[in-house]
Parts: sequence; structure tokens; C-alpha cells
Amino acid sequence: MTNPIQYAIESRVSTNHFQPGRTLDDGIIASLVAQASRAPSAYNMQNWRFIAVRSADAKARLRSLAYDQQKVEDASVAFIVCGTLAAHAQLAAALQPSVDAGILEQHMVDGWVAQASAAHERDPVLQRDEAIRSASLAAMTLMLAAQGMTLGSCAMVGFDAPGVSRAFDLDAAEIPVVIVTVGYPASGNWPQKPRKPLPEILNIV
Amino acid sequence: MTNPIQYAIESRVSTNHFQPGRTLDDGIIASLVAQASRAPSAYNMQNWRFIAVRSADAKARLRSLAYDQQKVEDASVAFIVCGTLAAHAQLAAALQPSVDAGILEQHMVDGWVAQASAAHERDPVLQRDEAIRSASLAAMTLMLAAQGMTLGSCAMVGFDAPGVSRAFDLDAAEIPVVIVTVGYPASGNWPQKPRKPLPEILNIV
Repeated sequence: MTNPIQYAIESRVSTNHFQPGRTLDDGIIASLVAQASRAPSAYNMQNWRFIAVRSADAKARLRSLAYDQQKVEDASVAFIVCGTLAAHAQLAAALQPSVDAGILEQHMVDGWVAQASAAHERDPVLQRDEAIRSASLAAMTLMLAAQGMTLGSCAMVGFDAPGVSRAFDLDAAEIPVVIVTVGYPASGNWPQKPRKPLPEILNIV
Repeated sequence: MTNPIQYAIESRVSTNHFQPGRTLDDGIIASLVAQASRAPSAYNMQNWRFIAVRSADAKARLRSLAYDQQKVEDASVAFIVCGTLAAHAQLAAALQPSVDAGILEQHMVDGWVAQASAAHERDPVLQRDEAIRSASLAAMTLMLAAQGMTLGSCAMVGFDAPGVSRAFDLDAAEIPVVIVTVGYPASGNWPQKPRKPLPEILNIV
């Protein structure tokens, strides 16, 4: 009865304990990020970027900016999922491949860019909302992609965001939205924690 | 080579055209939201709520607040995915089932609640970030859950948020983060649009 997607969603846990010393090669990292980038974003803005923190040096730096959490070091990779502010400014470039592929016509793209620019240009709250929204959609896709590859993952928001931006050379128009650690689960992880009863979170109207 | 999760991620499209008149029953809606709620959230806050807009009346109201987009009416259900502000205030209640299940000890929960309260209480930006982040993680899970049930979906952020809050009686501590339409795809939908080349969005350090 349970389809494979439902099974992945229901069996995913926040992996706090990873097997240290296990690595992921470039191909696996590329596949995870390619899948994450298949998430939707407003106007297909793709206002995100991924920094795969894999080396011992880089992990140590990130760990010290993330309340010294051991999993940053024990996971094979810690992905810093960044959201892009002022995403309208790069929308035309982001949509060019859709024009080249014959999916969107140039006049539509011009219209979308004008519309997005009008909405975003002078609205820093919307820019931030959009950066967090898109990066989070991509982060969830990344976690389920990991699940599909029988890897464990954990979303972390407990880190020094300005410190991470400085230490990992984020652009002034980027914010680190969430860190996703990925690797091989060790023993001792919690089961998935119970959720609120459905009547508390669902209304059908 | 492609696992079922990867296949779902890669084959998902933003469905703009749905078969009108097709309905989803309560059981399917409940399953979609139950799966969405399996998304992770900081401290397992579960700072989200889902309004399943299914009736003709409610759809017409929502459509008028969403730039008159036809898909709101043609989709079987339009889910208003809400994020909760001041989520620390409901964290103790959200974690009680984890205590009851013997997963978390009460003293840990007390510590988390104190920590979350200290961080969130006087920081409206963090509260908003967290609401958008959690609701977006849940929304992505909802879209992939729909995919797993061979339904189409579309994430929409083009709507009058204050208008939606009023028309659908959102609490003052809730914001509508994204609308996810779900239903049966009609013909004429775009394929998944191309994404930026990987070297533009991935750095391994």
C-alpha cells in the first residue's frame, strides 16, 4: 500500500550520529545537488547555491560556527544551502536555458523579469522570504534525495549565520538558510519523533 | 540506476493545468498532510498548519486572492501552507508526544523550550524565517507525497497574503507561506524547466 516516496518520507529521521571517516565522492555530491536543484522556485528563479563542506579543515571551521556540533564533523558532507537575495537580478540568465530549449518564449521571460523586478526590487522582506523559501524547498529535496540513496541526513539551523557567510565567502546577496549534513547513520539515532495529531494541523474548507 | 525517489524528484513538474471536476476525498487529503508533517523542523517545532481548500466557494475566494489563477479552481485541492510565528510558545506542547513516547526526557524538552524561547522571543525576523523555513520544508514534502500518489502539484507564491489571512481566518501568529495546488494533470503542461549548470551552484570545499 505504501508507495516508495511515502516510505522515504515516513522513514526519514534527523540523523544526529554519523559514522565518522566515511566519505562521499564528487559524483554522489553532484547527484545530490542536481536533485536538490530540481525543486521548484518562483519563476524558476533557482535562487540558491550549495557549498559542500567535505574537507577536514572546512568541517572544523563550520563546526566551530555551529555550536560545536559533532555531526558536522562526523557526517560525510555538510551542505551549506544558501538562498539568493535580489533574485530578480539574475532571473533572465536563470531562464535563458528554458528559452534555448524552446519551452519559454523570450517575450514571456521579459514579462516575468519585469514582473519579478517590480515586486522584488524595493522589498527586502520579500527578497529574504523568497531566499528562505527556495533554499528550504531545495534543502528538503536534498534530504529526500539522500534518503533515496540510503544515506542519512539532518537539517540544522543552529549556526552563526554571519560567521558562516564570512568563513565560506558567501556573496553579499546570499544568506545561509540551512545546513544539511549527509552521511552514513551510526547507531543510537532517535526514531522519527511523533507529530501533532492531524486535527490540530488540518482544516478542510 | 535511478531510484524511485530520484525518479519522483526528476519527473515532478509544476502543474499549471489540472483536470477540472476531479475531487480528492478526505482520506487522500489526510494522507498528503500527514506525510507533509513528517518534514523536519527546528526542535521538532512543527510550526505549520494546512488549510485544504476544496469546496467551490472556498476555491473562488482563494482564486480571487491569487491573481485569478485558473489552477486554483481546476486543481482538486489548493493547500494553504501556513507557518507559525512565536513557535517557541507552543514548543512544549509540540514535544509532549515525544516525551510520552519515551523518546525525549522532560528535562531535555525543558532545556529546548528555554533555549528556543531565549532565541525567538524578541526576534521577529528569526520567527518569520523559521515560519517560512518550516512551512517550505513541509510544502516540498507535500509536493513529493503527491508525486508518489501519481498526482500533480504546483507551488504558488503569487497571492495576496494579508487577504488570504483574512479570508481564511489565519491566526495573528500565522502567515500563509505558499499555496500548493494538487490534482490530476491535464494535457498541455510544460516539461520541467532546465536548471542552472551544476558548476554555477555547487562548490566543494
